[in-house]
Amino acid sequence: MGRTSDAKEKIVATAMELFHARSVADVGVQEICEQAGVKKGSFYHFFSSKQDLVVAVLDAQWQMGKQEFWEPAFSPKIPPLDRFKALTDGMSEFAQESYEMCGMFKGCGMGNIIAELGTQDDVIRQKADAIFDEIVAFIKAALDEAVSNGDLPEINTEEVAQAFWAYAEGTMLMAKSKQDPAYIRQLMQAGIAFLDSFRKGAVV
Amino acid sequence: MGRTSDAKEKIVATAMELFHARSVADVGVQEICEQAGVKKGSFYHFFSSKQDLVVAVLDAQWQMGKQEFWEPAFSPKIPPLDRFKALTDGMSEFAQESYEMCGMFKGCGMGNIIAELGTQDDVIRQKADAIFDEIVAFIKAALDEAVSNGDLPEINTEEVAQAFWAYAEGTMLMAKSKQDPAYIRQLMQAGIAFLDSFRKGAVV
Repeated sequence: MGRTSDAKEKIVATAMELFHARSVADVGVQEICEQAGVKKGSFYHFFSSKQDLVVAVLDAQWQMGKQEFWEPAFSPKIPPLDRFKALTDGMSEFAQESYEMCGMFKGCGMGNIIAELGTQDDVIRQKADAIFDEIVAFIKAALDEAVSNGDLPEINTEEVAQAFWAYAEGTMLMAKSKQDPAYIRQLMQAGIAFLDSFRKGAVV
Repeated sequence: MGRTSDAKEKIVATAMELFHARSVADVGVQEICEQAGVKKGSFYHFFSSKQDLVVAVLDAQWQMGKQEFWEPAFSPKIPPLDRFKALTDGMSEFAQESYEMCGMFKGCGMGNIIAELGTQDDVIRQKADAIFDEIVAFIKAALDEAVSNGDLPEINTEEVAQAFWAYAEGTMLMAKSKQDPAYIRQLMQAGIAFLDSFRKGAVV
């Protein structure tokens, strides 16, 4: 194969899968190229370093997640509070399918990379953090609409959106710790109850 | 030095610090021994493998955390809901101090290890997961007492305890992503508001 037109995409897709299944440090460029069926020389044609590849993986993962999940599920056409149910369902189904397919729950690909490399590589950390900001923006937009619809009272939507995403990341980490994808649905329902508590006017 | 009586403790303390600052994969046995001032031969006298060392690090970290934080802060002598304030303060101060000392926020040492190795090493995963269970038990005990005191209504204390700890882990991961230890206090206050919402009877 070598420098075929889709060699870069193959490298990114293979790296995404291997990093997620194990860790960034545990997977070498050699192994990625072998599994992608691409010559190692091609790798350095596309990427200046492994750091460069990790950034491309984060980017590809987020483009996929945005198109397949966030844009449709958090579309302005969906009633704002229904989007949170879609998030719980989406996270649970993703975890369940991935568990059935690989016999393990791998957690959040981006959360794993922050935990592994957040202190070691600032370029990678900033890339992942910028993606988290985009996710929080989807959540905040839903909360803002819920406030303006009267579905929620006036709340600090930025802070609640950050809290909600932190919680979602925590549930994925705990499900990875338990190796139990069902844990996500169970815990995310408590997150929905938290939003409900605003609706019922108990939290100020 | 070599097989001095405290060589094992030095290896564990050094590994704990280095794993937390970087990652398990990034730190080799050679570097740990050099920094601990212990001969590499001694290492294999105390530990059969790096896995064995990681388990010892998790154990030492938890013994320290339990004695220095969980047992005093979650003592039955402390009013149950005050323990959650102590947890927020403890997490914030730990993050702030560590940030000032090393110029970075390293996240939760145990959460990092689950994220990095949770799919790669089941012995390590089970060790960390058993520690999380002990933490959740401290939180559940506080919630149970709050229910029996009448401070909280009847709730599923096991599920709320799991949710609360997942949230705490999520806040530490997000603070690592932002490299902003102040993020923890801000987000943990939303966690306390969640408990308050039970108190005010809005969540069932």
